[in-house]
Amino acid sequence: MSLFNTLKEECFEANMLLPKLNLVIYTFGNVSVVDRNQGVFAIKPSGVPYEVLKPADIVLVDFEGQVIESQLRPSSDTKTHAFLYQHWEKIGGICHTHSTYAVAWAQALRDIPILGTTHADHLTADIPCAPPMADDLIQGDYEHNTGQQILDCFSAKELNPEEVEMVLVGNHGPFTWGKDAHKAVYNSGVLEELAKMAHLTLQLNPHASRLKDSLIKKHFERKHGKDAYYGQGC
Amino acid sequence: MSLFNTLKEECFEANMLLPKLNLVIYTFGNVSVVDRNQGVFAIKPSGVPYEVLKPADIVLVDFEGQVIESQLRPSSDTKTHAFLYQHWEKIGGICHTHSTYAVAWAQALRDIPILGTTHADHLTADIPCAPPMADDLIQGDYEHNTGQQILDCFSAKELNPEEVEMVLVGNHGPFTWGKDAHKAVYNSGVLEELAKMAHLTLQLNPHASRLKDSLIKKHFERKHGKDAYYGQGC
Amino acid sequence: MSLFNTLKEECFEANMLLPKLNLVIYTFGNVSVVDRNQGVFAIKPSGVPYEVLKPADIVLVDFEGQVIESQLRPSSDTKTHAFLYQHWEKIGGICHTHSTYAVAWAQALRDIPILGTTHADHLTADIPCAPPMADDLIQGDYEHNTGQQILDCFSAKELNPEEVEMVLVGNHGPFTWGKDAHKAVYNSGVLEELAKMAHLTLQLNPHASRLKDSLIKKHFERKHGKDAYYGQGC
Amino acid sequence: MSLFNTLKEECFEANMLLPKLNLVIYTFGNVSVVDRNQGVFAIKPSGVPYEVLKPADIVLVDFEGQVIESQLRPSSDTKTHAFLYQHWEKIGGICHTHSTYAVAWAQALRDIPILGTTHADHLTADIPCAPPMADDLIQGDYEHNTGQQILDCFSAKELNPEEVEMVLVGNHGPFTWGKDAHKAVYNSGVLEELAKMAHLTLQLNPHASRLKDSLIKKHFERKHGKDAYYGQGC
Repeated sequence: MSLFNTLKEECFEANMLLPKLNLVIYTFGNVSVVDRNQGVFAIKPSGVPYEVLKPADIVLVDFEGQVIESQLRPSSDTKTHAFLYQHWEKIGGICHTHSTYAVAWAQALRDIPILGTTHADHLTADIPCAPPMADDLIQGDYEHNTGQQILDCFSAKELNPEEVEMVLVGNHGPFTWGKDAHKAVYNSGVLEELAKMAHLTLQLNPHASRLKDSLIKKHFERKHGKDAYYGQGC
Repeated sequence: MSLFNTLKEECFEANMLLPKLNLVIYTFGNVSVVDRNQGVFAIKPSGVPYEVLKPADIVLVDFEGQVIESQLRPSSDTKTHAFLYQHWEKIGGICHTHSTYAVAWAQALRDIPILGTTHADHLTADIPCAPPMADDLIQGDYEHNTGQQILDCFSAKELNPEEVEMVLVGNHGPFTWGKDAHKAVYNSGVLEELAKMAHLTLQLNPHASRLKDSLIKKHFERKHGKDAYYGQGC
Repeated sequence: MSLFNTLKEECFEANMLLPKLNLVIYTFGNVSVVDRNQGVFAIKPSGVPYEVLKPADIVLVDFEGQVIESQLRPSSDTKTHAFLYQHWEKIGGICHTHSTYAVAWAQALRDIPILGTTHADHLTADIPCAPPMADDLIQGDYEHNTGQQILDCFSAKELNPEEVEMVLVGNHGPFTWGKDAHKAVYNSGVLEELAKMAHLTLQLNPHASRLKDSLIKKHFERKHGKDAYYGQGC
Repeated sequence: MSLFNTLKEECFEANMLLPKLNLVIYTFGNVSVVDRNQGVFAIKPSGVPYEVLKPADIVLVDFEGQVIESQLRPSSDTKTHAFLYQHWEKIGGICHTHSTYAVAWAQALRDIPILGTTHADHLTADIPCAPPMADDLIQGDYEHNTGQQILDCFSAKELNPEEVEMVLVGNHGPFTWGKDAHKAVYNSGVLEELAKMAHLTLQLNPHASRLKDSLIKKHFERKHGKDAYYGQGC
């Protein structure tokens, strides 16, 4: 019996939230959760439909993307997860979906502008869209390089992954993360909603301007600042 | 045992309508209900997911926004509710959501024009969008000032909160109210539908004109006038 | 006990399809069904939510719109139903909704053009949008005059209500009908879908042209012509 | 008792996926599955609602479209299915729907451009839209000629039906296919999602460009190439 049954169970439950939240159809997504003490993470097996997924199907992988324990192949995006766990030491879970509105922005190669307080409740920056990679990187270790592309995008825009827990990979779709798998999935739901709200807003007012700084600060701080009064402080 | 169990139960049930009516995801909303004799209102606790919310979790607050009875923190928007109860003596319930289409209009900083009889069945004016506040008001007692901003908007447009039971707070989202919590939630559902209908209408005809006065009057009066014949008169 | 229990039951069941098919929220719709031998029709009571509606609540009305048997008030649109039953002798049921996309076309004051075979499977003409009435007609016997407006629209466009079983009332919303109440509701579902398809089509191609005559004829005839081979011939 | 009970059951279950996946309303779709050894295929009966459809209702037809065994009429689109089975020897199932976004592209007479990796995960080409037929072909053996029109479209664009398992029939709607009925239905779900994503993308960026070749190749190959690492290799 696996030492990692709890980790697998946590990963399973986070994955099962994706169809429940209407963030995936078929097998268009995957969630992972890390055990930093053991240097492994648990991730959805590739191409297994959510209707038949079981906790025992979850695959354990190390930070090089090598399978530790499983009869099943891990998600084809595993090396992207591995790369992010390696480079961002404080994140505990990662989620990838092809949710409809987020993908539309990624295919349009546009950052999602911060247009309202729903956005500022979660992050203070536009949601970045990392550009597509150069051809040689695509032809090389593609999923590893996707992780690098995300990192480069955060460096170029001087973003902190503890504050901005989401990214669009250009032409592909969203990756989100958080302190655990549940938060990573939560962020995917938030991102899809922000993507839809921003889309509709720009249809109603193509010149809608970014939220002003005072409102960004107020909403982010009341939820995440040192004197936060949103939530139950736990 | 609380003297206010009935009030808490009523507040709980009204809050639980929000996810059922697809007006919120996660914790993006809150409903309150007032007991004017006691000078208190009951409101959703901050950041508690609807799936785990219980009647006992509901927080009691006075009109200054001070917690009367609870182990939980009230909604971060509590002072806006308190302000509106203080200034509008006839309202019995207040609802706040981040419903998608209403937020889009709020982010676009546009009033929702009255374009058809569905709108006129509920109110005779455009749904007002209160402008964002000045920076010092945002940096000050923000939620209190949001209430003031709503009041100022109604004064400037000469609107009566007993006839127009909804507003968009610019860059933020909708607040609605009514004689009780159930009516306040009902109005949030109506507002979201009107927001979607108006959006689609303007896509089909960017020059669609406001409903003419005779139709506005006819539809509002047949439902709300002294000779109303819509509904069962109760 | 009423002589009309079967009629009431049929009316009740047809009304209950509206929320099931997502064609109404709250009380935004009503269905009626006629008994031509008795010269009466059964219709939803006004303002009663679908969640609590019972067969016994259904109201019986004659062709002048006078209540025959009920403790409840009939739908505020009753006189429009009565007018149509009076003038169109072959229809057996009528349905009125405020379904979202159909209302958007009605508010845009646009006919829905026939753009594809889904449309031609059901009717060979554009779905007509009757213009808003003159002010004196609105201020007069409004619901009766709404029926007249629909009739005038069909006359002006030389449409046959047995072939075109749907109309948009400008600035208001759709009315549909058919040989019985079930068919009337079916047509409301078809209309909403055609309204959405046409909206999306024109967004993708603002110059999309009407379906050519040969395709209109082929699809309508294979389903409704004398040599129809769609369906089971019953 | 039929020799073909298994085939009928398979056909029934695939058809029942259509309403479950929100790809049809009413009777707007049909699925067939072929038994090449026997030279017959099973298909949905015409106009039978999904709520009452039973395995025993499924109709058996030969490749000329002649009914082999049934008391019910087969789908009016049967000859299109028959034509495709005759000419494309490797396909095992066919699905036809009037799903909303796919129909919108078909009515707009536009190919759906490949704009992202969700598309490239499934096919490397734009999803072709076959033009409407000449009038004499419509007036002739229409459903047979629809099959020919699809074939001609694939020839003209030099597409391989084993690689591109979907088409839009101009002004009508989508047909999809695959190695079995389940895969055919899966492709209808994928097509509807790609149609919606592409629509939203072009609204956000009317100049969004096609996915570059390296990304198309990478995503298609990692799922379908000889060294594929997506899925469980079965």
